[in-house]
Amino acid sequence: MTLQNDSKHYLSDIEIAQQAKLQPIVKIAEKIGLSANDLELYGKYKAKISLEMIDTLHKRPNGKLILVTSINPTPAGEGKSTVTVGLGDALNRLGKNVMLALREPSLGPTMGIKGGACGGGYAQVVPMEDINLHFTGDLHAITTANNALASFIDNHIQQGNLLQIDSRKIIWKRALDINDRALRNIVIGLGGKSNGIPREEHFDITAASEMMAIFCLAENLTDLKERIANIVVAYNMENKPVTVKDLGVEGALTLLLKDAIKPNIVQTLEYTPALIHGGPFANIAHGCNSLLATKTALKLADYVVTEAGFGADLGAEKFLDIKCQKGDISPNAVVIVATIRALKLHGGVSLNELNFESIEGLKAGYANLVKHVETIKAFGLPYVVALNRFSGDTGQEIETFAALCQEQNIPFSLTEVWEKGGAGGIELAEKLVSIIENPQIENNFHPLYASEQSIEEKLLAVVQKVYGGKNVELSALARKQIADIEKNEWSHFPVCIAKTQYSLSDDPKKLGRPENFTITIRELKPSVGAGFIVAYAGEMLTMPGLPKKPAALNMDIDDSGKIKGLF
Amino acid sequence: MTLQNDSKHYLSDIEIAQQAKLQPIVKIAEKIGLSANDLELYGKYKAKISLEMIDTLHKRPNGKLILVTSINPTPAGEGKSTVTVGLGDALNRLGKNVMLALREPSLGPTMGIKGGACGGGYAQVVPMEDINLHFTGDLHAITTANNALASFIDNHIQQGNLLQIDSRKIIWKRALDINDRALRNIVIGLGGKSNGIPREEHFDITAASEMMAIFCLAENLTDLKERIANIVVAYNMENKPVTVKDLGVEGALTLLLKDAIKPNIVQTLEYTPALIHGGPFANIAHGCNSLLATKTALKLADYVVTEAGFGADLGAEKFLDIKCQKGDISPNAVVIVATIRALKLHGGVSLNELNFESIEGLKAGYANLVKHVETIKAFGLPYVVALNRFSGDTGQEIETFAALCQEQNIPFSLTEVWEKGGAGGIELAEKLVSIIENPQIENNFHPLYASEQSIEEKLLAVVQKVYGGKNVELSALARKQIADIEKNEWSHFPVCIAKTQYSLSDDPKKLGRPENFTITIRELKPSVGAGFIVAYAGEMLTMPGLPKKPAALNMDIDDSGKIKGLF
Repeated sequence: MTLQNDSKHYLSDIEIAQQAKLQPIVKIAEKIGLSANDLELYGKYKAKISLEMIDTLHKRPNGKLILVTSINPTPAGEGKSTVTVGLGDALNRLGKNVMLALREPSLGPTMGIKGGACGGGYAQVVPMEDINLHFTGDLHAITTANNALASFIDNHIQQGNLLQIDSRKIIWKRALDINDRALRNIVIGLGGKSNGIPREEHFDITAASEMMAIFCLAENLTDLKERIANIVVAYNMENKPVTVKDLGVEGALTLLLKDAIKPNIVQTLEYTPALIHGGPFANIAHGCNSLLATKTALKLADYVVTEAGFGADLGAEKFLDIKCQKGDISPNAVVIVATIRALKLHGGVSLNELNFESIEGLKAGYANLVKHVETIKAFGLPYVVALNRFSGDTGQEIETFAALCQEQNIPFSLTEVWEKGGAGGIELAEKLVSIIENPQIENNFHPLYASEQSIEEKLLAVVQKVYGGKNVELSALARKQIADIEKNEWSHFPVCIAKTQYSLSDDPKKLGRPENFTITIRELKPSVGAGFIVAYAGEMLTMPGLPKKPAALNMDIDDSGKIKGLF
Repeated sequence: MTLQNDSKHYLSDIEIAQQAKLQPIVKIAEKIGLSANDLELYGKYKAKISLEMIDTLHKRPNGKLILVTSINPTPAGEGKSTVTVGLGDALNRLGKNVMLALREPSLGPTMGIKGGACGGGYAQVVPMEDINLHFTGDLHAITTANNALASFIDNHIQQGNLLQIDSRKIIWKRALDINDRALRNIVIGLGGKSNGIPREEHFDITAASEMMAIFCLAENLTDLKERIANIVVAYNMENKPVTVKDLGVEGALTLLLKDAIKPNIVQTLEYTPALIHGGPFANIAHGCNSLLATKTALKLADYVVTEAGFGADLGAEKFLDIKCQKGDISPNAVVIVATIRALKLHGGVSLNELNFESIEGLKAGYANLVKHVETIKAFGLPYVVALNRFSGDTGQEIETFAALCQEQNIPFSLTEVWEKGGAGGIELAEKLVSIIENPQIENNFHPLYASEQSIEEKLLAVVQKVYGGKNVELSALARKQIADIEKNEWSHFPVCIAKTQYSLSDDPKKLGRPENFTITIRELKPSVGAGFIVAYAGEMLTMPGLPKKPAALNMDIDDSGKIKGLF
């Protein structure tokens, strides 16, 4: 969702979505060469692509990949999903064979605070009510696989504990696709002998779970089962890892994901095909849609536009250092989304002053964008900045922004996709096409660290080259955990840093472009199935809470099935 | 699933299901007058029926309703689902316009101990892999609505507790569709101020939740929202009920069920249309598929065969005293399923002796069947006993069974649907048709108690007329709760007794036909949204545990997606 601040009356996202005339998804799929037989329909407007179909694609060449990222988000909204969708529609208008690859929304934010994740205004994926609510059931299947595993672990201990699992060292957590602070820290197994072994437990939101990460990095059923088998769920009394393979349930858990693994296809308001599949958050997880969906889109379309969550410090970094390395893919160009309003907030303007012009604030906040531009350059990638226009932006502000970009030789386009759909993103699309199709423009894509570097070196590389910080400080616990990681020979894995999305630093209050800061790593968690080491920078919550007035309070469905309050 | 004990090699249920040539569900739906437009497809072989379509049906006359119930189940298997499916196929073979109305399987038993719930042998509903695993996501939607509500309750307290909820008197529990003993008794909200209020909590299996019961008793979206609004989630500091309406989230919770509420249509191996919708257990819940599915089937078909869970003491009693009263429907005839093997177990033969003929055991165990026959007669309903033949049954045993039935004037048919599909149920189907179409045969259906009777009188009526017991004993807690129920003016609700399925009494070891026993009601729970009072007879677990070797250990899916180990 995007809230475009304006005095005129605009239709709400759901009103626009409900007025849209959707095409049958079979028609949309035809555009990219899929027949009805390649699809498993979920109603008329959603489908999954069969794995048999995907198996036939591997010899085809890849299309061009455009990654959309942004500055650090603020409550003012940067509209990254909206620009992503609008850019896809703009490429479509230019006659390109284009697809989107996006993440599935989580019900936690939908019911809680943020609303859904389908874009906004005239740049939306539809049917947004369905995509935002259960969709094709993938997140529920992932939740179920996650919790079935938890239950198998506790049952193993209850039934004699042949593997000698140390119940104080179980690292596998339960999960729900919900915002529920009361489940963050719990004690389970109470009530005596027949009701389990009492122990401390924690629920994560599904989007933060390793099962979600595995799901999003698996290339096919075989790879999925192998990754699940490799999950380290606990340590035994001798401090040796206990895996899912040891428990013997990798087959059953993979079976629970047999349908979820098939990428989902939907459409934009302008009939651009979109794969929406997998949904890890980018702050507490790796933040990109499934590798399978991205790779499938690259085989089916000439241009694929994909989005990584939050700012380039989180989603894009993980996309480039984790997903691209794992999947042997690389973007042909990057879009960095910024808004005047968000930059003003980064420049020190307060939230309730944002409706007033502030050239000074804009100039000060521009530094946040510059840092993200430097990051994308550090990865060796060509890019365009997209200024997502809000109707309250003044001419003077936009001119200032343009001048700042010119001064620093930063290519940019003004986009108005929220109001105009694909028509509002034509210039951006044209710039990207000219970059991508111009053999003169260099693309020296490379990750920011090598797998053989130590965990500490990898952390430092991200902190210095991406966050613009100076040092990494490890807690005593983190130091001990790194020693364990080395002992277990997991140091070759990339790092997946869980950090606040609001700041380049680990302090959400440091807006703009903080410098000379230190990132404190409190704790590390090897996600051996996913194949990365999660590093927690500061007090990151892996289970969000609900606000005082949850979005749910405004939601309703009337007798005829008409929906209100989703956004 | 049914395990038919035999020396010959038979194909497994999943092998039979995988060999079956399914028809597109669109074709199946055509048989009952539904067009492709009335369906929302979930793949090629599953669909939901649109609520718009269902709205057009209300003026049509109802078809005939056949309820399938059974003796008390034993580990020997009575094959009630198999007979239900086979009977539907037999009526189909007789040229009747017939549909099935069945419950959705829960993943708890599927992964745990019991296997799925799609029938067995050549009397199955398909695609069984899908129906047994996630299906169209209904149970996950119900789980999510259940847990979203729990989260809203705890968040309300966390955010100031305007409604003055007494956190010691929250009766709404969390739920998962999983077997997980470690979640039976837990403490949540630990970890300090920002992580909720510490309190005792419990997870139920979704099939036992009030949200599932509400889902299965709602007639449409409006009724669903009203029932959800009426849920009593807790009591406040003055011991007054706090409802979902007080929390203001009935709209959001109904929205979460907007697709789940549409009945699912699939097919049998012989192409009989089957609605599979809603899945409460019959021991710890009310045990029948959704009222909406049953009523829809009655409008679309001339004959509807439906099943209530476990024995007639549980599923059928609740079907007749709760669901039929609520929905103003009544069965035209009842089938009581029995097997020689299960009757021998009821007659004292041990499990490992069942392969040997035992006329004495059979005669002794027959008393269990007689009690269930008396129960169905007490409801004023015509019936036929179906002897579900296992290949190990001897000729002498079957003759003895026939003689016992003749002596007592109990109409019965031998069914062989597991081995022969619908062909094995023709005689049963013909008997039922002749009963139903014969105006001479009386049908004096009536519930066993009136709504104006007291809760204690209602409990006693079920114990005496259905279980064949003598008394009801109330714990001190139950007595206090009945006083509260009266004070809150909820005594007009029917009772939904949670009791072991293995015995007519509350002691699972008392097989056969126990007499002169007392049923102890430990606790009562008003399910104000569902509209009944749950009464717990003895130590009933509302969250099952996993066995030492869960069924999951044998499950697998290979690289090509072929599945093993589901049954």
